Amino acid sequence: MVSSVNCSSRSSSFLLCLFLPLLVSVPLSVSAGAFQAFQPLPVVPPIPENNVLSKEKVELGKQLFFDRRLSLNGKLSCNSCHDLMQGGDDGFSASEGAKGVSGQRNTPTLWNVAYQTVLFWDGRAVSLESAIEEHLLHPEVMAMASKLDVSQRIKSIHGYEHQFNSVFPGDSEINYKNITKALATFIRTLTTPDSSFDQFLLGNKLSISAQAQRGFTQFIETGCASCHFWVNLSGPVPGLAFQMGEGFYELFPNYPGTDYEKKYQLAEDLGRYLVTHEITDRRMWRVPVLRNISHTAPYFHNGSVSSLEEAIRVMAVTQLKENLTEQQVSDIKAFLETLSGKFPVITLPRLPE
Amino acid sequence: MVSSVNCSSRSSSFLLCLFLPLLVSVPLSVSAGAFQAFQPLPVVPPIPENNVLSKEKVELGKQLFFDRRLSLNGKLSCNSCHDLMQGGDDGFSASEGAKGVSGQRNTPTLWNVAYQTVLFWDGRAVSLESAIEEHLLHPEVMAMASKLDVSQRIKSIHGYEHQFNSVFPGDSEINYKNITKALATFIRTLTTPDSSFDQFLLGNKLSISAQAQRGFTQFIETGCASCHFWVNLSGPVPGLAFQMGEGFYELFPNYPGTDYEKKYQLAEDLGRYLVTHEITDRRMWRVPVLRNISHTAPYFHNGSVSSLEEAIRVMAVTQLKENLTEQQVSDIKAFLETLSGKFPVITLPRLPE
Repeated sequence: MVSSVNCSSRSSSFLLCLFLPLLVSVPLSVSAGAFQAFQPLPVVPPIPENNVLSKEKVELGKQLFFDRRLSLNGKLSCNSCHDLMQGGDDGFSASEGAKGVSGQRNTPTLWNVAYQTVLFWDGRAVSLESAIEEHLLHPEVMAMASKLDVSQRIKSIHGYEHQFNSVFPGDSEINYKNITKALATFIRTLTTPDSSFDQFLLGNKLSISAQAQRGFTQFIETGCASCHFWVNLSGPVPGLAFQMGEGFYELFPNYPGTDYEKKYQLAEDLGRYLVTHEITDRRMWRVPVLRNISHTAPYFHNGSVSSLEEAIRVMAVTQLKENLTEQQVSDIKAFLETLSGKFPVITLPRLPE
Repeated sequence: MVSSVNCSSRSSSFLLCLFLPLLVSVPLSVSAGAFQAFQPLPVVPPIPENNVLSKEKVELGKQLFFDRRLSLNGKLSCNSCHDLMQGGDDGFSASEGAKGVSGQRNTPTLWNVAYQTVLFWDGRAVSLESAIEEHLLHPEVMAMASKLDVSQRIKSIHGYEHQFNSVFPGDSEINYKNITKALATFIRTLTTPDSSFDQFLLGNKLSISAQAQRGFTQFIETGCASCHFWVNLSGPVPGLAFQMGEGFYELFPNYPGTDYEKKYQLAEDLGRYLVTHEITDRRMWRVPVLRNISHTAPYFHNGSVSSLEEAIRVMAVTQLKENLTEQQVSDIKAFLETLSGKFPVITLPRLPE
């Protein structure tokens, strides 16, 4: 059951009703309303009851995350496209899967996805576990032939046997469900807390520059914050206003027919419509995470824009009908750069032979 | 200047003269001679004077090692084929390079290459630095167009600038030489000391099983140790009997025309002859490292043999005209498994955007 809330100014949103009155009243400095709409990244992400987190499960998930044998050709691991040494993505417009075929959409960052309520650009996965299940079998991603093939591949690596026994007692057989559960558990630990902006929200007014503070005000005044708010600046998170599976969507481009739309082919992909086939879902997209945005170029669902400055300009025009000055663009960029958090130290796993 | 010493029983070798009399006298237990021919892995590998090791250089080299932007298509890092989460190789018979073309030879392990005097299966690189230089430009590996392209690629990533300045003071420009020096420095730290066999050599007789001890004796008696001796069980190391650039080679197959030779196409590649064009170098190969051998399947220069047991059988027949019993094969395998050392904990680097 997938429900959705649309953020677009053309659609209703109880969240807009909640926050926008607070945000639009901001004149030159940052109001109290802004601080209600933005929240530091919680230390612990929401953990589903049917996949509790344990240290051993995280470790097993990490091994699987880096194990290329989970792909058809044995050459791609999750980390190949979601590179944890960088922005949790791969820097390409679209990633090439294990069959040598690229998808149509840009690989989103994995950092902080634990705080997202739906996954994929079109929100078609209602849990991290189901998103991973789809990745393993998707012909443009890992391209494994079947669930059975996935579990048999992992079963054939004897070093994993003992670990699955210990991580999933009572359900010790290596199966598809448990492989995705272990992967999801590791991915939930991929959070980047304590960004300069988080410190700012917690009261350290010197943690971000005067330019970034101006950019934050501009971000709110221009209207970016109407959709990009809360802990991931991508709308609500599970356990708070929204539950897992409830998506927060936006029409993009909101103002059709702009030069940017043509230049970057922004309207060709029909987005969520391809999942629901509802006319109202044409070009609706899950509002993307802005944390670590300066590490995740290129931008947009098709990865067509390579610089953050240009992405800011495009968003202002296509979504809000605003032509920003270069100073405003620069200020908003300075603000967005404060959203880069502390990347955790991750040790390379040892993979069983 | 590349000099060479041939280990083959068909060729002269001062090292054979040194060690073989000690080794062949071993009856059922391990003699004092065996302990002179084998050495625990030294804690610090040989460091060349023109590329001193520093903590900062290791860190920079680690970043470059994992950075896929060092390959033509931006999809391969050194770690793609020399996977440090596994045996320092990739488990394939031959690795596919950045142009989608595979080489003809199996990717050797990177673990403990710091103790090798020449690099590549045919020993054509006389230093780790020169081996890396070739990797970056080789059309079947990283396939970068030129040295200039490599340095410009790294220069275009601004985050590296400050690091090169700090690691190479006085020669701070990002250039090809310094890129390979940093990579070589990191790779020199990839050592796996303290294997069970090392502990055994140091006097802990319980560190390897009775079967492995039998296998060690068998390894010597059969003649494997004639070539596979010293710290890497691949012949001499720099700073000891040999200097960097002096290769230690073996004819393979030594006894031509066996069924194994045909089955695994062992004689098709002319090995070192393709480098020197000397008739005496036909099918001469650098004696490969045996440390961590149980992690580096498939085996031989063409990666044609997938199991360690079979590799042992093949070696005994093609090199020493010995048909081993299954018990002997099993014992030697148990010995070879004691050559797996302690893999260091490596943290994932953060790569600059």
